[in-house]
Amino acid sequence: MDIAMIEAAARRLQGRARPTPLLSSPFLDAVAGRRVLVKAECLQHTGSFKFRGAWSAISALAAATRAKGVLAYSSGNHAQGVAEAARLHGVPAVIVMPSDAPRLKIENTRALGAEVVLYDRAGGEDREAIGAAIAAERGLTLVRPYDEPEVIAGQGTVGLEIAAQAAAEGVTRADVLVCCGGGGLTSGIALALAARAPGLRARPVEPEGFDDVARSLAAGRILANAAGTGSLCDAILTPAPGQLTFPIMAAHCGPGLAVSDAEALRAMAQAFLRLKLVLEPGGAVALAAALFRPGAVEGEAVIVVASGGNVDPPVFRQALDLCG
Amino acid sequence: MDIAMIEAAARRLQGRARPTPLLSSPFLDAVAGRRVLVKAECLQHTGSFKFRGAWSAISALAAATRAKGVLAYSSGNHAQGVAEAARLHGVPAVIVMPSDAPRLKIENTRALGAEVVLYDRAGGEDREAIGAAIAAERGLTLVRPYDEPEVIAGQGTVGLEIAAQAAAEGVTRADVLVCCGGGGLTSGIALALAARAPGLRARPVEPEGFDDVARSLAAGRILANAAGTGSLCDAILTPAPGQLTFPIMAAHCGPGLAVSDAEALRAMAQAFLRLKLVLEPGGAVALAAALFRPGAVEGEAVIVVASGGNVDPPVFRQALDLCG
Repeated sequence: MDIAMIEAAARRLQGRARPTPLLSSPFLDAVAGRRVLVKAECLQHTGSFKFRGAWSAISALAAATRAKGVLAYSSGNHAQGVAEAARLHGVPAVIVMPSDAPRLKIENTRALGAEVVLYDRAGGEDREAIGAAIAAERGLTLVRPYDEPEVIAGQGTVGLEIAAQAAAEGVTRADVLVCCGGGGLTSGIALALAARAPGLRARPVEPEGFDDVARSLAAGRILANAAGTGSLCDAILTPAPGQLTFPIMAAHCGPGLAVSDAEALRAMAQAFLRLKLVLEPGGAVALAAALFRPGAVEGEAVIVVASGGNVDPPVFRQALDLCG
Repeated sequence: MDIAMIEAAARRLQGRARPTPLLSSPFLDAVAGRRVLVKAECLQHTGSFKFRGAWSAISALAAATRAKGVLAYSSGNHAQGVAEAARLHGVPAVIVMPSDAPRLKIENTRALGAEVVLYDRAGGEDREAIGAAIAAERGLTLVRPYDEPEVIAGQGTVGLEIAAQAAAEGVTRADVLVCCGGGGLTSGIALALAARAPGLRARPVEPEGFDDVARSLAAGRILANAAGTGSLCDAILTPAPGQLTFPIMAAHCGPGLAVSDAEALRAMAQAFLRLKLVLEPGGAVALAAALFRPGAVEGEAVIVVASGGNVDPPVFRQALDLCG
């Protein structure tokens, strides 16, 4: 993995992924006590950054391989990203999803033309085994959600955009807080910033109780989470950092942060009020850290990646209750 | 009023107003039966396009005049735009607002540093008279919400951006649906498109029962609304088209459309689900027309201006109820 792979992915994504805006509000600056710049990746196609990695991976396949189709397992955002990238390439997609994933994510994945195979997450069924069996049987190529070089390269294009947009705002030294599950987005951004904006430092933000990346970075080795479910932040609940993503994060990231579900909901309320953005809990943890853990952040400005907005209305209502 | 004034405003707005993205979703295309491109002006500073006109007008004042301060009357979005543009210029602002304006808009206007003077809209107090008295007493310059050349020029910069963005999307012939109150945004966009993208035709969209612009365009003369209040679309309830805006709209706009409050709420639900945007009812009427009145629109694609997102949580809940 290197910056050349990210730049090659950026060329394949040109005119396909949406360059997303870097937003701000004086009200958020006042809450955080410093300037807050929000990379609104919830405005990406399919409502999360995942479209970038999916397009990057599928567009990098040999045409004959791609034509047979792709398979992914995902709680929802990678599912929609792969489904849409496959649809636009005109190739079949099978998506293995937990039966308790947000309804909106399951419905959207089907509506984008993918075949959805549900599995019972609580019952202990293994999504990787289910996916591998289907992929082998039908000759599909697996597009892993994060531990996949071309996926990391695609997510890294967010970092290229941040480097340019932050410079245009006069920000050359800052923490860049990234909502982090398996680390595909965080590691891609970290690689891009290290090469193109070395004064900007990527830092993963996770839900409390699911801070495997933060603990792994602190320990210098891969550590797993105790629990597999139990947070509103469904998009970023992964068992452990990836084999590919962890070494990149260890080399380039600052310390991780963790926030509560309540803080994620409060950040969603602020995004609603101040930025007019719809965020999902897992897409709001980085903003939550910037707003509600200012002592854990360094510098006069902080950059936040708002990574996704695929939230069911009942959860969004919980955030609206906190608008105060 | 001509294109040169809009281009001069665009130069003053450079680096001040945010260029807003043109968004889309295959799900919205399916509802509308044609391609739908949404200009997300709710992402503008202060949550609506009004910042553009306010900055344009205040930046065009002579320095000595500007230093004395500005005054505006507004139900809320123009209020916030003027307050923020005045704050950034370092000059005082007094805003005359109806006491029944959305709470969020009143609070934000105060928080942006403006002095807010409330009046009783239902009781028949005249905001123009109140504003004129304060302006005279304190030597403030009135920034009218729409019937003001430099305000129209600032709103017209939305049209310059649409012309460039639509061309990049390969769209050169389409209806451009614009949420319309007094016609500042609609007339500015219409002027810009007539000069820079003549295949794109601006069309005002209003709430049912408050379609003064549509009726005036049909009659060829300025007609007023019967009622002054009674729609959720507070941002675009104006008594009649402006003396300056009407002739521009009559020269350049296609026929107006009108939608119900229920349709505006359904459009807000679609923006939440598909675009991850927060829209207010008055900022959603153009999207509502594109989605739910497809027979009234012409062409293979339709462009929609989503003009604002300053909505109180209880109203947004009504939209969430319609996510289905």
